[in-house]
Amino acid sequence: MRFIVADWGTTRFRGYLIEDETILDQVSSNEGVSELQKGQHRDVFLRQCGRWLEAKPDAPVLLVGMVGSREGWVEAPYATCPAGPEEIAKAMVPVELGNGRSGYIIPGLFCEPAPGAADVMRGEETLALGSGIENGIICSAGTHPKWIEMRDGRIARFATYMTGEMYALLREHSMIGRPATEPEDLSGFDLGLDAAMRNDGENAVGLLHLLFSARASVVSKRMDSNLLAPYLSGLLTGDEINGALAQFGRPKSVTIMAEESRAELYIHALKRYGIEAQTKIPQQALLAGLSRIVRAHAQR
Amino acid sequence: MRFIVADWGTTRFRGYLIEDETILDQVSSNEGVSELQKGQHRDVFLRQCGRWLEAKPDAPVLLVGMVGSREGWVEAPYATCPAGPEEIAKAMVPVELGNGRSGYIIPGLFCEPAPGAADVMRGEETLALGSGIENGIICSAGTHPKWIEMRDGRIARFATYMTGEMYALLREHSMIGRPATEPEDLSGFDLGLDAAMRNDGENAVGLLHLLFSARASVVSKRMDSNLLAPYLSGLLTGDEINGALAQFGRPKSVTIMAEESRAELYIHALKRYGIEAQTKIPQQALLAGLSRIVRAHAQR
Repeated sequence: MRFIVADWGTTRFRGYLIEDETILDQVSSNEGVSELQKGQHRDVFLRQCGRWLEAKPDAPVLLVGMVGSREGWVEAPYATCPAGPEEIAKAMVPVELGNGRSGYIIPGLFCEPAPGAADVMRGEETLALGSGIENGIICSAGTHPKWIEMRDGRIARFATYMTGEMYALLREHSMIGRPATEPEDLSGFDLGLDAAMRNDGENAVGLLHLLFSARASVVSKRMDSNLLAPYLSGLLTGDEINGALAQFGRPKSVTIMAEESRAELYIHALKRYGIEAQTKIPQQALLAGLSRIVRAHAQR
Repeated sequence: MRFIVADWGTTRFRGYLIEDETILDQVSSNEGVSELQKGQHRDVFLRQCGRWLEAKPDAPVLLVGMVGSREGWVEAPYATCPAGPEEIAKAMVPVELGNGRSGYIIPGLFCEPAPGAADVMRGEETLALGSGIENGIICSAGTHPKWIEMRDGRIARFATYMTGEMYALLREHSMIGRPATEPEDLSGFDLGLDAAMRNDGENAVGLLHLLFSARASVVSKRMDSNLLAPYLSGLLTGDEINGALAQFGRPKSVTIMAEESRAELYIHALKRYGIEAQTKIPQQALLAGLSRIVRAHAQR
C-alpha cells in the first residue's frame, strides 16, 4: 500500500512517500513543531508534501510525533494502553488538508505502569508497533528512554526515565558535574554502573546521595576527574535499569531501539546485568509501525 | 574563653568575636571565597577582623567553611570519620596572619558512609559538634542536605543528598518542571512524598521514572499544573528520607538544623514517616561547635 507520512517532531519535519515499508521519496526541513505558530502547519505540510498529494489522490496521509501535542497542529488526545494498531488507528485525529482530503494524526499513548503513576509517549508507540516484537521488552533509548512491554503485538505498558536529560542537567548546570575533565576515561561508566547495581533493593541509599558522592570522590581525590562524566552516565543508566527491572521483571532479552553508539552502551550495560540485548534500527521500526497502522486504518 | 572566628563560605564572609558561646561583635561582607583570588584572603581577613586581633593579642583565631577548600585560602585536607573536637583540632591547618600570629582552618570531613561510596562536608562538622546530640541522627538541611550519625559526641558517619540542587535544576533548566504554574498548591508536596514512600524497597521503580511521571501526570491532565512544583519537592525530599533511613536505620527522632521554613518541611515530612523531629538553630550550633573545637585546640 502506498501512503504519505509526516514524521513531525519538536525540531524537524520529515516527509515520506512510502510503499509498504519502502521509502519512495522524502523531504526534510527544520520546521519542527517548536518553530511554528498555530495555523502554520497546513501550509508547511502542503509546501513540503503537496506534490505527492496531487500525484497520489487516494494515498492515506498519516502524521506522527509532536505534531499531535498541545503545541502541534491539533492536540490528539492520548489513547490508553493496552493498544495495538487497531486502537491507535481508531483514535487518530483528522486534520483538513483542503479539497475535502484529510490527514490523520497518530495519537500518543497514556499508561499507568504502576498504580498512581502516569506516563505518556508520542511517536515511540509507532516504533514499538514496528519493532517486530510480539511479546517482550523494548527499550527505546533517547533523551527520555522508554521501556515498553509488548503483549500479543500490542503495547501493554511502558515507563519513561529522564536519564539522558538528567545527565545533561548534571553536566551543564550542576555543581555535581563541574569537576569533570576531558578526555573522558570510559572505564568510569562501569564504576558508575556498579554503584547503581549495589544501590538496589532494601539497602538502596538513593540516587540523590550517589550523585553527590560521585563529586565527593573527585574532590577528596578518591576518583580521577576524567572518570566523573562517564561515572555519572553509568550511574544514571544503572538506576534506570534497576527501575525498569523492578517495573517489568527481569527479561532474558531486551530489544534496543536507539542510534548506534547509544545502543552499544545499553548492550554493554545490560550484559553486566546478565541480560541479552539485540538492536532494531529506529527508522526501520518507524516504517514498519506506520505500515501496520495505515493498514488498520484502511480496514476500518 | 574569648576567640575570633571567620565563618567564610562561598558567597559570604562573616567575622565574629566570641566569648564562650556569646557573640560580642560581628562583621559581614559579600567577600565569599568564590569572589576572591589566591593571595587576597589575608588582606580581607585583616581588614574585617584586624581590630579584634590587636585588641585581643592572645585570642585564638579559627576559620571555618569553604575557606579551607581548594578554592579557598589554603586547602585544608579532609579529616576522616569518626571525628570529634580533638581529631578536628589536631587536623586544623595554620595560616599566617602576620606578626607571628596564626589562624587555624577547621578541616572538612571525609567519610565512606557505605563501602565504595565517598562523602565530604566542610562547615557542617562544626554545627554537628555543636548540636548537643551525643548519640543520634542530625539532618543539616541546606541545598545539599547532610544526614549525620553522632556516636559519643563524635561524628561517626554522614551522607549528603543533592535534593535542593536537584529541585532547582528541575525547576530552572529541565523539561520536567516546565509545566509548573503559580500559585503553588502545597498539597502537591504530600502527593510527591507519598509517591516516594511507595518507591521503596524491592519494588522501587526509580526516581528517574517518577520525575518523568510527574510531568506526564500534568500533560495528560491527571494532575493540576499548580501541584507540580510542590510535588517534585515532596518526591525529592521523600527519596532523600528513604535513602537516609536505608543508610542509617530508622531512628525514633531526628534533629533538624535548617532555616525555619525548610525545617518545618522536614518536620512535616518525617511525621508522615512516623519519625519525630526537633530543631536546633544553625547559628547556635555553630557557636557551640566552635567553642568545643577552640577548647580542644587550647588543650593541645
